[in-house]
Amino acid sequence: MSLAQSPIEPATSDPAPDAENLLWQRNRDGSAAPPQQWNDTLATILNHRSVRAFMPDALPPGTLEVLVAAAQSASTSSNLQLWSVVAIEDPTRKARLSALAGQQKFIRDAPLLLVWLCDHARLTAIAAARQMPVEGIHYLEEFIVGIVDAALAAQSAAIAAESLGLGCVYIGAMRNLPEQVAAELGLPPQVFAVFGMSVGYPDPAAETGVKPRLPRPVVLHREQYSAASQEPDIKRYNATAREFQREQGMREQDWTQQSVDRVKDVAALRGRDRMREALRALGFELR
Amino acid sequence: MSLAQSPIEPATSDPAPDAENLLWQRNRDGSAAPPQQWNDTLATILNHRSVRAFMPDALPPGTLEVLVAAAQSASTSSNLQLWSVVAIEDPTRKARLSALAGQQKFIRDAPLLLVWLCDHARLTAIAAARQMPVEGIHYLEEFIVGIVDAALAAQSAAIAAESLGLGCVYIGAMRNLPEQVAAELGLPPQVFAVFGMSVGYPDPAAETGVKPRLPRPVVLHREQYSAASQEPDIKRYNATAREFQREQGMREQDWTQQSVDRVKDVAALRGRDRMREALRALGFELR
Repeated sequence: MSLAQSPIEPATSDPAPDAENLLWQRNRDGSAAPPQQWNDTLATILNHRSVRAFMPDALPPGTLEVLVAAAQSASTSSNLQLWSVVAIEDPTRKARLSALAGQQKFIRDAPLLLVWLCDHARLTAIAAARQMPVEGIHYLEEFIVGIVDAALAAQSAAIAAESLGLGCVYIGAMRNLPEQVAAELGLPPQVFAVFGMSVGYPDPAAETGVKPRLPRPVVLHREQYSAASQEPDIKRYNATAREFQREQGMREQDWTQQSVDRVKDVAALRGRDRMREALRALGFELR
Repeated sequence: MSLAQSPIEPATSDPAPDAENLLWQRNRDGSAAPPQQWNDTLATILNHRSVRAFMPDALPPGTLEVLVAAAQSASTSSNLQLWSVVAIEDPTRKARLSALAGQQKFIRDAPLLLVWLCDHARLTAIAAARQMPVEGIHYLEEFIVGIVDAALAAQSAAIAAESLGLGCVYIGAMRNLPEQVAAELGLPPQVFAVFGMSVGYPDPAAETGVKPRLPRPVVLHREQYSAASQEPDIKRYNATAREFQREQGMREQDWTQQSVDRVKDVAALRGRDRMREALRALGFELR
């Protein structure tokens, strides 16, 4: 890629005034050095927050197509493109999918629901039409490939949406009832709805702050994995999380408690403990 | 999110001159309507190509920290943050990891290798330190969560890197020998290296074009999944892929043939057919 042809954004020797603030917001740990370069893309990425309150306004014509072009621009393993996306705008279908995904109101409110798919059916059909075998598709490895492909595509679309002033939220609850979701979307065998994503204009009356994440040393390891600094950093993060919850008028609770509660037992998985069974029913052997 | 506070990039009523060209490059199918809005973030995303030839130049100080801040800004299921990343700059370790991942030269050449991890160890350790159970972590569902978390984080980092004029490439071959990679990186049980990513300045002498993807209707379904237009669109894509291969001086082959060859039998998985066994050895039960 020549530097001349690429769409590289101009480096500023003088970082934009919000660079340090955006970096601070993400961890609130004061350890962020002022970056040497800054640009609008970094600002868009750093300023992400999930949006769960949407205006009813429709998206401008062509928006969906640009989001899908962004998604298709993401890397995909061996160019296999083992993903698809279903765009749902019909209010009655959104309502039915909301009912299958924890009755979340924002699914009904947002003008667009995207459901991102791990799609092994396309390649299987291509091979069948050409009398070629696809033995390898049935292995866990290719399931991982399809999940990663779908996630990379979705994240590029999410950042593209946010650069256009839209908001979005990932919907893991789309995995609560995989077979019912597959039936609603008319998915053929070997296609799995990995997650949903609501997209629309954020309701300015329900603005939320940037949620702080774990201190960087907890997730960033140098040369080898190290959990050495983990415990003090995580205690500090519990305090940061409570500070954020207070600011947002949320119930205060340690992040450690919240997180462990999400995986403490089978009941905490809210039905998703049967994922293997559901995937088998959907045609994934996961050998 | 108030529009006033957000880092939304200015909409241009007059699209940048390269918008249509970037959209065209991605699919080469002439169906892209001119977008109503355009910005540098969309240009960066649309202009992605994997970089496999790097300059030896080191990254500017602070770059890694900005990339990780971008990664931490991605959505993460229930804020569990079930991912970590190992940053490798030591040439001898990069060489050893290159040997484990198909001897790919770019792993040695690029100044930075990031290995993105599905990390169930952190939450397990947090729970153990607090005498709390984590029964749910052993289910396939939470493995999917960790894979998706790692992929979303990585893609935000990749786009951030590209906005800074850097190039990167995902390395699926980091899954060829999962136990050996885990040993090299000192991973504790319940941590899995999902993929690698080399990051550095692209070698301008080895510039590549934007690889065209499948026609949009093949991956974008409206309201329900439909494979109706698939076969003619895929035939068209075979011709597009050959056109691109010709331009890049690559061996010409149908995309359908290339793709099926990657999954035609167990041998085509190049050892990754033992992923389930490898994951079990790494402490993932995948119930």
